[in-house]
Amino acid sequence: MEQTELQVEIPSVLKQTSCQNIKDFDYVDYGNGNNPNPLENAISDKESYGESIAGSKITKLELQEVVIISLPASPSGLHIGQTKLVLHSEKCENTDQNDTKNPYPQLAKQKKFHSQPILVRENGDRKVVHSEAIRDHRFDPFKTWSGRLERQISNLRGKPTQEPDIEAGASQREEIEEAPGVDRYFDALEGPELDTLRATEVSVLPEDEKWPFLLRFPVNAFGICLGVSSQAILWKTLNTSPAMSFLHISPMPNLILWWAALALILFVSFVYLLKIVFYFEAIKREYHHPVRVNFFFAPWIACMFMALAVPPSIAVNLRPFIWYILMTPIFILELKIYGQWMSGGQRRLSKVANPSNHLSIVGNFVGALLGANMGLKEGPIFFFAVGLAHYIVLFVTLYQRLPTNAALPKELHPVFFLFVAAPSVACMAWAKIQGDFDYAARIPYFIALFLYMSLAVRVNFFTGIRFSLAWWAYTFPMTGASIATIKYTMAVTNVVTRSLSVCLSAISTFTVSTLLVYTIVHAFVLRDLFPNDISIAITRKKPKFSKMLSHFRSSSADSKDFDSSISKNSEI
Amino acid sequence: MEQTELQVEIPSVLKQTSCQNIKDFDYVDYGNGNNPNPLENAISDKESYGESIAGSKITKLELQEVVIISLPASPSGLHIGQTKLVLHSEKCENTDQNDTKNPYPQLAKQKKFHSQPILVRENGDRKVVHSEAIRDHRFDPFKTWSGRLERQISNLRGKPTQEPDIEAGASQREEIEEAPGVDRYFDALEGPELDTLRATEVSVLPEDEKWPFLLRFPVNAFGICLGVSSQAILWKTLNTSPAMSFLHISPMPNLILWWAALALILFVSFVYLLKIVFYFEAIKREYHHPVRVNFFFAPWIACMFMALAVPPSIAVNLRPFIWYILMTPIFILELKIYGQWMSGGQRRLSKVANPSNHLSIVGNFVGALLGANMGLKEGPIFFFAVGLAHYIVLFVTLYQRLPTNAALPKELHPVFFLFVAAPSVACMAWAKIQGDFDYAARIPYFIALFLYMSLAVRVNFFTGIRFSLAWWAYTFPMTGASIATIKYTMAVTNVVTRSLSVCLSAISTFTVSTLLVYTIVHAFVLRDLFPNDISIAITRKKPKFSKMLSHFRSSSADSKDFDSSISKNSEI
Amino acid sequence: MEQTELQVEIPSVLKQTSCQNIKDFDYVDYGNGNNPNPLENAISDKESYGESIAGSKITKLELQEVVIISLPASPSGLHIGQTKLVLHSEKCENTDQNDTKNPYPQLAKQKKFHSQPILVRENGDRKVVHSEAIRDHRFDPFKTWSGRLERQISNLRGKPTQEPDIEAGASQREEIEEAPGVDRYFDALEGPELDTLRATEVSVLPEDEKWPFLLRFPVNAFGICLGVSSQAILWKTLNTSPAMSFLHISPMPNLILWWAALALILFVSFVYLLKIVFYFEAIKREYHHPVRVNFFFAPWIACMFMALAVPPSIAVNLRPFIWYILMTPIFILELKIYGQWMSGGQRRLSKVANPSNHLSIVGNFVGALLGANMGLKEGPIFFFAVGLAHYIVLFVTLYQRLPTNAALPKELHPVFFLFVAAPSVACMAWAKIQGDFDYAARIPYFIALFLYMSLAVRVNFFTGIRFSLAWWAYTFPMTGASIATIKYTMAVTNVVTRSLSVCLSAISTFTVSTLLVYTIVHAFVLRDLFPNDISIAITRKKPKFSKMLSHFRSSSADSKDFDSSISKNSEI
Repeated sequence: MEQTELQVEIPSVLKQTSCQNIKDFDYVDYGNGNNPNPLENAISDKESYGESIAGSKITKLELQEVVIISLPASPSGLHIGQTKLVLHSEKCENTDQNDTKNPYPQLAKQKKFHSQPILVRENGDRKVVHSEAIRDHRFDPFKTWSGRLERQISNLRGKPTQEPDIEAGASQREEIEEAPGVDRYFDALEGPELDTLRATEVSVLPEDEKWPFLLRFPVNAFGICLGVSSQAILWKTLNTSPAMSFLHISPMPNLILWWAALALILFVSFVYLLKIVFYFEAIKREYHHPVRVNFFFAPWIACMFMALAVPPSIAVNLRPFIWYILMTPIFILELKIYGQWMSGGQRRLSKVANPSNHLSIVGNFVGALLGANMGLKEGPIFFFAVGLAHYIVLFVTLYQRLPTNAALPKELHPVFFLFVAAPSVACMAWAKIQGDFDYAARIPYFIALFLYMSLAVRVNFFTGIRFSLAWWAYTFPMTGASIATIKYTMAVTNVVTRSLSVCLSAISTFTVSTLLVYTIVHAFVLRDLFPNDISIAITRKKPKFSKMLSHFRSSSADSKDFDSSISKNSEI
Repeated sequence: MEQTELQVEIPSVLKQTSCQNIKDFDYVDYGNGNNPNPLENAISDKESYGESIAGSKITKLELQEVVIISLPASPSGLHIGQTKLVLHSEKCENTDQNDTKNPYPQLAKQKKFHSQPILVRENGDRKVVHSEAIRDHRFDPFKTWSGRLERQISNLRGKPTQEPDIEAGASQREEIEEAPGVDRYFDALEGPELDTLRATEVSVLPEDEKWPFLLRFPVNAFGICLGVSSQAILWKTLNTSPAMSFLHISPMPNLILWWAALALILFVSFVYLLKIVFYFEAIKREYHHPVRVNFFFAPWIACMFMALAVPPSIAVNLRPFIWYILMTPIFILELKIYGQWMSGGQRRLSKVANPSNHLSIVGNFVGALLGANMGLKEGPIFFFAVGLAHYIVLFVTLYQRLPTNAALPKELHPVFFLFVAAPSVACMAWAKIQGDFDYAARIPYFIALFLYMSLAVRVNFFTGIRFSLAWWAYTFPMTGASIATIKYTMAVTNVVTRSLSVCLSAISTFTVSTLLVYTIVHAFVLRDLFPNDISIAITRKKPKFSKMLSHFRSSSADSKDFDSSISKNSEI
Repeated sequence: MEQTELQVEIPSVLKQTSCQNIKDFDYVDYGNGNNPNPLENAISDKESYGESIAGSKITKLELQEVVIISLPASPSGLHIGQTKLVLHSEKCENTDQNDTKNPYPQLAKQKKFHSQPILVRENGDRKVVHSEAIRDHRFDPFKTWSGRLERQISNLRGKPTQEPDIEAGASQREEIEEAPGVDRYFDALEGPELDTLRATEVSVLPEDEKWPFLLRFPVNAFGICLGVSSQAILWKTLNTSPAMSFLHISPMPNLILWWAALALILFVSFVYLLKIVFYFEAIKREYHHPVRVNFFFAPWIACMFMALAVPPSIAVNLRPFIWYILMTPIFILELKIYGQWMSGGQRRLSKVANPSNHLSIVGNFVGALLGANMGLKEGPIFFFAVGLAHYIVLFVTLYQRLPTNAALPKELHPVFFLFVAAPSVACMAWAKIQGDFDYAARIPYFIALFLYMSLAVRVNFFTGIRFSLAWWAYTFPMTGASIATIKYTMAVTNVVTRSLSVCLSAISTFTVSTLLVYTIVHAFVLRDLFPNDISIAITRKKPKFSKMLSHFRSSSADSKDFDSSISKNSEI
């Protein structure tokens, strides 16, 4: 209804393209699900590309968002597309004809899949043969060198650069280069992991097509490494612990998991390194994301897990220098992040506190455990103390659920299992430092156990929650609790503790296996393991509606819905 | 003034009854205090009953509250009463004549005392002989079987059920069956124990007469058991502790107190069990009450106190299975309640935190102490750890006094003595677990001592605060501090510690004795030990005034006060 | 612009004086810096004094503040000054002539320096010879006996008291006598130390001239004692610690610093005692100031530092009774202040929490350390326990940075170094109590170390922050961390710990030396070490603009800016 009424006011070109757009939307979605081979995207079509750009522009307009920001990268393509639309679309039905005129319909449907870093791009306009024109500039602002380096190169080659294009990119770049403030993340995103765009917000990257792979590869992916490497520790402990010898676990699972985890860490690190190289702006935005930033601890924790899980057949004693190397980035990150909590401003703890902060705490205890395993003394106690102080702060803050903690999900969520991580690792760390699973070690252990039970009885966790890569990070606390239970069983060996050990180990292995199946299904069957990482694509400032608003207000008396939606937005 | 102005608009029937009502109020109060034998209530009088109902209806109207909800149970009675009033009251003075016309004035005065579960009820109308009509349906929604079972029974007997009556009850039941949300409790109630109805709220049960005894019997009553049984422990400790042997305390006080506490626990449990059986809805509402819910820990803590106080002449060593039995309900309650704190929603800790939450923490330490006394090891540490973690959270939260903690009283209040409970029990528990009153035990002990002193110097506690049964629960922390001091004196025996022990024991015994006297006075002299438990009678939703409001607005220009009170209410 | 527009409406007399005022302001500042000898102020000049009063009045008007409150002390002087201004100022340039006409220009420049308690005052009007008229009544409300005692004395002498003058003083006294509520401090002041008046507020004392010295002498001055005496401890530790013997520190620095600190403490105490005697109202207002109140712990902590730093050549073992004497005021203050945190009202912790609260915590640990040094046992553990409990509460609260903590500076600030104080003293206290620098001592030590590093990496601390006496209080945590590091080095002696000890000691000594230089420069060169202590001069209630507002509204159509500034103020 609203749409129809709006059409009266908007220019006739837009009117027709808004019809066009409906179809466009459809096949974009269709294309996403139906496009297993990224290489096919190399072939593209002039008409469908122009069409899609015009369509995407109108999509923006319908969302009542900033047109300027999402200017199509290639204005020539846009022009042709628009002209074409004006020519052959007098009615909405024309768009279907348009579609049928496309000589390669199946390819047109797949045209949106940008596969990076293979850097195969669509050719927006066949007549424009310059390399500059072929490039899809929409992702430029996130690229490390896109604007500067490549332009310099093309200048060296003596080719005239397309000025309007660059300018559009520049304004967009300006919008993006400075990462948004924390408030913007809270304002623009929602969900327990702050990964869903609010209805009133607009993405700086096209929402209707798949982005380059590297842009969609989040730091959360290191969560998989955490999950697998912690399993490797679990099976090592099951294998070597005298209390669990009755299970007769072979050293093989540990060995296999360790190598698998190693391969995984190398792969994820390599891909993420590519992202750092090619899309540094995206990294910056992940780093400023109040939930995502905690995952920057994950690679180092995963490496420490690897050091803890190292199969006895490979190495028995690790050299302490490894510990110093691994603790350095963690220490620096902590100085940065804990300092932000305390020193206030936008990143004050009462604002950003969310369960994923536990990831930034647990590194201390893992480090203490690893250091104590290596025979160090003072370093482990140092990190244990730092972890303890900040764990108390975080534990109290999260338990209180201050009304200012916007990020905290209302409903329970797998992320809450991170509560279990810190105390279960802390008890092992203390037991190792102290050389005995004493009362001081049992207190964190029992806290972990209670939290585990408290979460376990809330079984409606996994219902209605969209699968996400971040879930992997939420499995390692369960594994940690299992390992701690085995350690505790070594101190207090009886039927109950043994059963508990077996039970928790089984649950944790089952969870990881289930998640592995899910991940494989999403990766290779559904092919949506890495959806567009909308978290990093929010605008730096709240979208401005003033101009659009004044236009609509003067021309239309039926824009009440529109107005109210805008005023609602500006209230937030 | 307002009343007079309102009378212009309301029908003349109501006008007269509102005069009537003033007198009615008076003798209701009089009747409450003057009516020791519930059996006398069996005799009642048609006229005075109808009168009282009509009166109660107008009371509601004057309070600007929902008339529909508090529909009188027997409409026929109401009708007759009203008719009668119209007949013989042209002026307010008529009501006095009306009263003198009553052939049994002394009985009329006693007519309001509903004694449940003996289920003797007033006969609203002599002409209506059906058993259904005799029942007072106003309390039905809180009854466990009232609507369903009894109707079925009467149907079996072939008696026609009075349809309008049942329907009214059904709508009321609908209103009540689902317990109100936590927000409603905070909105509708006030005071440090959230036990006073706000001016703008309406009770679902009649406010102007005494409810059935069981409905007025709150879970707080277990507080008396806590107070008495903790005294039994104190006197046992005074008797058996070598450090206090210079006092030459006989084992008799312990024995007497223990048996008294046992009798009390059995009695309170029996009555509360009856309440569970007959008024399960009321129990549900107590359970959802943010302050009251913590008292559900009280019965189990009292039982543990009994186990700790068991006189040496009765038993020396208790069997551990008792501990497991007692800890199970505490553990389940904790899983439920701590989970609610963390998992957010309406019961997030930053919202519900109030000193009575200490009751839900102290159970852990009492359990740890009892378990350690029985020679258990891991179980006590488990509960000690759980208690410690949650005590830190609660201690910080309460000390901060977040602005969102609506329930926290502005002024200090006896409830604050619960602060002392957890650390004083914790130090004993740790001393028992560790086998020595070491530094780790002294830290909680000294914290308890400091908090005690910090509260004690604020002497204007007990001024201007209405006596309440809940006060009993606030005595056991003082007793606990005394016992802890004696334990500490055993570790550090000198004149100062001995004096402190004697002093604190004297204060605690004095306080309990004073409270006992108060309780006896209120129970047997003033007969208001169990006032209407208004906390459980709040409406599930904010009362709607729209209809009444529109009526008053259209008819009256002088309803400003009324309007402002409503708008004030809707702002809250 | 605004000023010019206002001049149209205000009387012509004021118009001219507002020009006058600009010059007046200049030489007030000049006079402040240029006036080393307070005795010179005894000589004053009728004309320039009247002038300055008229000028000061207009200053107030320009600040849109209450003229009534800051009524000039001598109305006759005002009258003459005004008359004179009307006579010889037709244009702004006249004021220069006015200045040259002054026969004693250099004295006129110095006329603003009021030196209390020497009680030499300016003679407002030569014709008024009564002693009562000579007195400057503006500071009366803060004086202990001013109004009452002196008036009685003058009455005894038979001299007629000047009624209007006394009345003005009485209304002002009424305004001041009851100290403002905490909310007023937060509303009226800003800055991390709440020592700057907000633009919309008015001071009850004249802002444009120097107040009596005692009124400007804040309790913060004890911070210097903290800084110097803690240095004495550091050098004692460097001298006596076997781990630092390689430095060959002589006992002299300790001895010198100790005597210097002793002299300083005696001097500051004496001056502050005078302030207590002569300006008790000012003390009350300092005590109610949410930041300043914590400095009331400083004298006692400084004394304990002295006891800890006592050179071995003076005394080896101190008598425990000193400890009891010193702990008594600390204990009483704690009962008062911690009680306020918990018991709510305006001083609830979630409202007043700010880093200077650490001063009220650290006393516990210093007390514990001193007591343990003296061989006491239970007392130190008591204070250690109290400190621990409240430190956890404060640490969590400050780390969370609740949005209600209005006092907490947005940017980091030297005050944050107080975070380091408590854990670094706590570790020493525990090590002394336990007799060993064990794990339990290392945990607070490492927490202190981490916090130190976390603050140290934020180097832009000292940029753009105005020097303040309070900074001294922020040096002792650094010294404390150095001493703790030396103690830790005694437990873990190696190159790293020794280097750390030397490094931290050097930093702390360097900081104290720098601050000493700053202080000396401010004290003797800039002569602004003790600026007007505006924190204690806020009005008890929000300034009322209604009268002034109605005047301006009726007369001026251009007062929009004025109105908006007022409405902005009333919104706060």
